[in-house]
Amino acid sequence: MSQLIIFDTTMRDGEQSPGASMTKEEKVRIGKQLERMKVDVIEAGFAAASPGDFEAIHAVAAAVKESTVCSLARAQAGDIQKAGDAIKPAQRGRIHTFIATSPIHMQHKLRMSPDQVLAAAIDAVKFARTLTDDVEFSAEDAVRSEMDFLCRVFEAVINAGAKTINVPDTVGYSVPELWGERFRTLIERVPNADKVVWSTHCHNDLGMAVANSLAAVKAGARQVECTINGLGERAGNASLEEIVMAVRTRKDYFGVDTRIDATQIVPASKLISTITGYPVQPNKAVVGANAFAHESGIHQDGVLKHRETYEIMRAQDVGWHTNKLTLGKLSGRSAFRERLKELGIELESEVALNAAFKKFKELADKKHEIFDEDLHALVSDEAVTPEVEKYHLVSMIAHLETGESPYAKLVITDAGKELACEAQGAGPVDATFKALESVAHSNAELLLYSVNNVTEGTDSQGEVTVRLSKAGRVINGIGSDTDIVVASAKAYINALNKLAHGERMNPQTGD
Amino acid sequence: MSQLIIFDTTMRDGEQSPGASMTKEEKVRIGKQLERMKVDVIEAGFAAASPGDFEAIHAVAAAVKESTVCSLARAQAGDIQKAGDAIKPAQRGRIHTFIATSPIHMQHKLRMSPDQVLAAAIDAVKFARTLTDDVEFSAEDAVRSEMDFLCRVFEAVINAGAKTINVPDTVGYSVPELWGERFRTLIERVPNADKVVWSTHCHNDLGMAVANSLAAVKAGARQVECTINGLGERAGNASLEEIVMAVRTRKDYFGVDTRIDATQIVPASKLISTITGYPVQPNKAVVGANAFAHESGIHQDGVLKHRETYEIMRAQDVGWHTNKLTLGKLSGRSAFRERLKELGIELESEVALNAAFKKFKELADKKHEIFDEDLHALVSDEAVTPEVEKYHLVSMIAHLETGESPYAKLVITDAGKELACEAQGAGPVDATFKALESVAHSNAELLLYSVNNVTEGTDSQGEVTVRLSKAGRVINGIGSDTDIVVASAKAYINALNKLAHGERMNPQTGD
Repeated sequence: MSQLIIFDTTMRDGEQSPGASMTKEEKVRIGKQLERMKVDVIEAGFAAASPGDFEAIHAVAAAVKESTVCSLARAQAGDIQKAGDAIKPAQRGRIHTFIATSPIHMQHKLRMSPDQVLAAAIDAVKFARTLTDDVEFSAEDAVRSEMDFLCRVFEAVINAGAKTINVPDTVGYSVPELWGERFRTLIERVPNADKVVWSTHCHNDLGMAVANSLAAVKAGARQVECTINGLGERAGNASLEEIVMAVRTRKDYFGVDTRIDATQIVPASKLISTITGYPVQPNKAVVGANAFAHESGIHQDGVLKHRETYEIMRAQDVGWHTNKLTLGKLSGRSAFRERLKELGIELESEVALNAAFKKFKELADKKHEIFDEDLHALVSDEAVTPEVEKYHLVSMIAHLETGESPYAKLVITDAGKELACEAQGAGPVDATFKALESVAHSNAELLLYSVNNVTEGTDSQGEVTVRLSKAGRVINGIGSDTDIVVASAKAYINALNKLAHGERMNPQTGD
Repeated sequence: MSQLIIFDTTMRDGEQSPGASMTKEEKVRIGKQLERMKVDVIEAGFAAASPGDFEAIHAVAAAVKESTVCSLARAQAGDIQKAGDAIKPAQRGRIHTFIATSPIHMQHKLRMSPDQVLAAAIDAVKFARTLTDDVEFSAEDAVRSEMDFLCRVFEAVINAGAKTINVPDTVGYSVPELWGERFRTLIERVPNADKVVWSTHCHNDLGMAVANSLAAVKAGARQVECTINGLGERAGNASLEEIVMAVRTRKDYFGVDTRIDATQIVPASKLISTITGYPVQPNKAVVGANAFAHESGIHQDGVLKHRETYEIMRAQDVGWHTNKLTLGKLSGRSAFRERLKELGIELESEVALNAAFKKFKELADKKHEIFDEDLHALVSDEAVTPEVEKYHLVSMIAHLETGESPYAKLVITDAGKELACEAQGAGPVDATFKALESVAHSNAELLLYSVNNVTEGTDSQGEVTVRLSKAGRVINGIGSDTDIVVASAKAYINALNKLAHGERMNPQTGD
């Protein structure tokens, strides 16, 4: 059976969602999880976007052994050099270079003639090939490019050494039949089409990213670019989990399979949700909390047993209910460090490890069972990586009483110096935020506040996401605690620290 | 241009999601919103499921004037009679009767021979036609039924008087090409196919419900069964908003249009989310918070202006940012009542109206701007419909302090009698739940706790959803307040009241 290459762009296109930017440490954890899931290609970022993203790709390339690690690069020598440098530590490294090929993009965005674009594409691929053997070329806005020109560009970049040709539906407006036809035409008309892997990259603006991607597969594409939870700009990208389970469940129709270890899908979904603060709705296919809500009944399972052309999709196949109790109250420091390492969490210093271990012991006192999700939440905690952060929570009091104004009093450190603050508010959380603002003066706008359980059960940790916006920057602060008011304080402090830290801004890419 | 009929089943198939059951009052509010959105057919429930659902359908049929109101019914005289009675007040009423036609369902679930199924289908349609002219027939599990038998059943029920033939993909495992082919074959082979409207009903287990539905439309289907936010069993049904915007944006390809007023889509999405407690993920197409996050940039909009075969989809077209400030602090009681009525909220008594007006005034003191979403949240509040509920919140205190155990003390009424309770917990919310349990003794399991903003801004109300499970029943309690700890108490009390109330259980249907 033909193999379908799964190219995950959660850390590149997914990261372009408002507030979803990831730190280097977070990217390494995600990279390790994607490797464990047996993703073929991990697009770890866009090296030229910022020194921070360069460092993150470099760290992922060093940490991941089994999957190819890729960086995006515009069709410019500077970008490509940075991408090549960033992926240098990888066992298998890929450079993914792109340029727009639609009349409107060439004219208004690039201000280049078609011949100039063609020349730039060839030069980019040739230069990238001096840095790695594995070069992918994307024609941005392919969906609105002229077929003749597209064929000409693809033929030329294949001759220049591209190994993968990616065709993106940048605006997410295609439909399966037309998208499949486009691939059929391209593969038929490009004379050297058989020398490359054809790749599809679809957005979900009209709800058809998965169906469009699979129509391309049916027409001959052998790589799908996708993201965990369908994260991505606007309505997101094609969902990795839906693509993988659709081709697996309907092998009879698609005739391809992937290398993916599907039991790692739900852990990956939870990790991405935790790190980005983007919740997954219950009725999301495969990874939503309800996706298998009926499985215990005789209905679906019993019926499917009799229909052998369908493979049954079961909750445990995609990793539901398989999270093991990995650590208990009596686990020692080295077992703790070992488990973190397995999860791709490598803390930078002994101080950080000690802080994390202390948090773990505190949590084990309050909570019966510690799951992997708890450990991921724990290392997201602001106390764990103390050396890089401006503000810390020392202690707090919050009080509400019917008929009186709720208040909060906090003690925090600001660059090591203790500060007390207090405020009244609509509730203890609002009062906490106001108290913190009274000393931090961020003047950021609160865009979103949400709380979700990390794990099931009444002793679950609450995980709070606070999305702040300031001067065009949007950041997510995350905090978790068995007390959601304390978790809220941590999340707000995390957000303030991110604002203070001055994070990188990614330049816009259009695919 | 040919018209595509939009059949909304949010209140029937959507309601079958765990914990998404709706009260009569909620169904009327949803029905009014669907009517305002110009949905063609509203499936309001399954009349034979319970006396409660019968009443709800009856109330929707009486309240809605512009849309057809429909009840589901098994192919049994008792069910059909109840459906006919429930839709009696409707200006246009439809009975939607179904029976399974796949070998496995007929043999194991129905224990009927194909000839018996055929006879039951004909009898059901004939009897339904004595109650209304508008009868729809569904072949449950059509996706796995034998084509010859399916054609025979459809021909016979069309002769018996069915006006709409619905073909469901019960397990959500089809793919667009095959689903389109199935419709093409059916329409070609059923001799009287031209006498009916063909309808498609798709589930989203592999992420392709929308694409499958639209492949059916391309093949000749002229009704799509769908739900707001894609709510529905497991991974849900095809999303109404995606179907509508896909055929509108790609009119060039689909050649059909709907009557839908798309500016009512986002308000409908928020209403369903509020009532069911099911959040919408930010990267959901059309109705997710990020769906149009890039619109302000020149990128998408500027580019699309040059491509006339696409209609541009803009945030305001689907109702983003159009929620008007409808009421202010100085609005009087009659303006308030009038606005509620426009929103389909008809409170049953003067007591309830007074309670709601009092809540409104309290909210207006705390919050600058009152939006429609606030009014919907407000009437979901437990205090507004006091006559039917067992428990009420009188007052509360909650306190947390670093190094001490958080505690909560509450005074509630239990059937009018005041009770005090208190408890310690992991945080003030946990302590509140424990205090309430110490008097209510529900022993229910907490499945989910989540908090979301109702509207934007720091003075937004927090809306808390608490999902409890007890003896196989799952219910959602909802509470909103500018103080999320108080909102949590209200949500838990709302959940306890629902448990005490003994809600109906819907029998399983398989489409």
